[in-house]
Amino acid sequence: MFIGEVIGTVIATRKTANMDGLPLRIVRKINTDATPTRTCVIAVDGLGADVGEYVLVTSGSAARQTRATDNRPVDAIIMAIVDTWQTQQQVQYTKFDNNS
Amino acid sequence: MFIGEVIGTVIATRKTANMDGLPLRIVRKINTDATPTRTCVIAVDGLGADVGEYVLVTSGSAARQTRATDNRPVDAIIMAIVDTWQTQQQVQYTKFDNNS
Amino acid sequence: MFIGEVIGTVIATRKTANMDGLPLRIVRKINTDATPTRTCVIAVDGLGADVGEYVLVTSGSAARQTRATDNRPVDAIIMAIVDTWQTQQQVQYTKFDNNS
Amino acid sequence: MFIGEVIGTVIATRKTANMDGLPLRIVRKINTDATPTRTCVIAVDGLGADVGEYVLVTSGSAARQTRATDNRPVDAIIMAIVDTWQTQQQVQYTKFDNNS
Amino acid sequence: MFIGEVIGTVIATRKTANMDGLPLRIVRKINTDATPTRTCVIAVDGLGADVGEYVLVTSGSAARQTRATDNRPVDAIIMAIVDTWQTQQQVQYTKFDNNS
Repeated sequence: MFIGEVIGTVIATRKTANMDGLPLRIVRKINTDATPTRTCVIAVDGLGADVGEYVLVTSGSAARQTRATDNRPVDAIIMAIVDTWQTQQQVQYTKFDNNS
Repeated sequence: MFIGEVIGTVIATRKTANMDGLPLRIVRKINTDATPTRTCVIAVDGLGADVGEYVLVTSGSAARQTRATDNRPVDAIIMAIVDTWQTQQQVQYTKFDNNS
Repeated sequence: MFIGEVIGTVIATRKTANMDGLPLRIVRKINTDATPTRTCVIAVDGLGADVGEYVLVTSGSAARQTRATDNRPVDAIIMAIVDTWQTQQQVQYTKFDNNS
Repeated sequence: MFIGEVIGTVIATRKTANMDGLPLRIVRKINTDATPTRTCVIAVDGLGADVGEYVLVTSGSAARQTRATDNRPVDAIIMAIVDTWQTQQQVQYTKFDNNS
Repeated sequence: MFIGEVIGTVIATRKTANMDGLPLRIVRKINTDATPTRTCVIAVDGLGADVGEYVLVTSGSAARQTRATDNRPVDAIIMAIVDTWQTQQQVQYTKFDNNS
């Protein structure tokens, strides 16, 4: 899995039969210090993530291991919305800032 | 999945038995600001995409999750034809331009 | 899938039990303008491709979707021998040259 | 598989239904001389690895071949905690230093 | 598949239950002219390859298509020990040198 930031949405009305109703988000991969990379993927979003939220993306056949994506041509999903992460005891990101 | 532009077609008459009748398109991966990358893949096209259209490509075992590609040696398909996408509230591409 | 050029052969007599009889070719990935890249893979060849021929390579679990490779530890096959491909209405390569 | 160093933890309360109870660690891939790379993955940890420990990460569908991850949207796990490795008869890393 | 050189061994006693008894080797990917690359993988070795031997590595779900690795969290195996390979009619490597 990798951490990414939701940066947008893709709309496609002409698609393979079993893709109806699956929202497609643009997710930019980020580094563990929360700086952006140049890598983006399109992922199915079953969690209702907002633009700007940090999420975990699962890739490959594992992306079909949810009820919504089972047996569908999906190779990436938003598997979780990230609350916080830390590296070497240092919080790199937290969704709920103490000052807010 | 990734967004790509259909840029061409591959013809191959000598192939494994179960690949007959599957059109093969050359798709160039593009960035989210619609600039081209140097990465191309060959994808099975079950949607009839035209050269110049932007499409979504699904890779890996997920590419076999359609009726046309089930149980065939296919590792990439055109899963959708893109109408529009936006990042940070800004439309990056739309198929149906207001001026047309 | 990607387009590659067959550039050689690998011989290995000591191998896992179920790999007997599967020819192994060295395939160099090429760009869509037919210039070579630096990426090579070893692929099972069930089509009898010659050195110098352009082929389509299928990777991942899809490489086991042929009778010869089913249930074998194979992650890449030569799925087709390319006759021709074109990008933006321009023929980039054709096997059967008009002048020959 | 690759060798990585556990450098942190990700917390996510909003996630797909079948991901409850699986600890998510940040693992930095390292070179065989134990120098760090810039590549990180998020991996499910069923072994209780500590920050600073060297581990083996398994990726792709193989990450679902454990009891804890079976049928879950997981594409990377910590499969082992490394005791030692050597290249060309030289020990590159050992967990239990003689001097300790 | 790719050609690699066995350069070392990893020892790990704490691991997922079904990994017991599978030797883990460090394999450096090499170019087709037998020069080394900077890419290494850890692969299960069911063939008893020695340090310095050239091998074929199979990756992904295909790595579980042997009796030893079936249903185990393994994403790379040594599938064969290479005797020789040639590119463009030129032998790039042969295990059994005429002069020995």
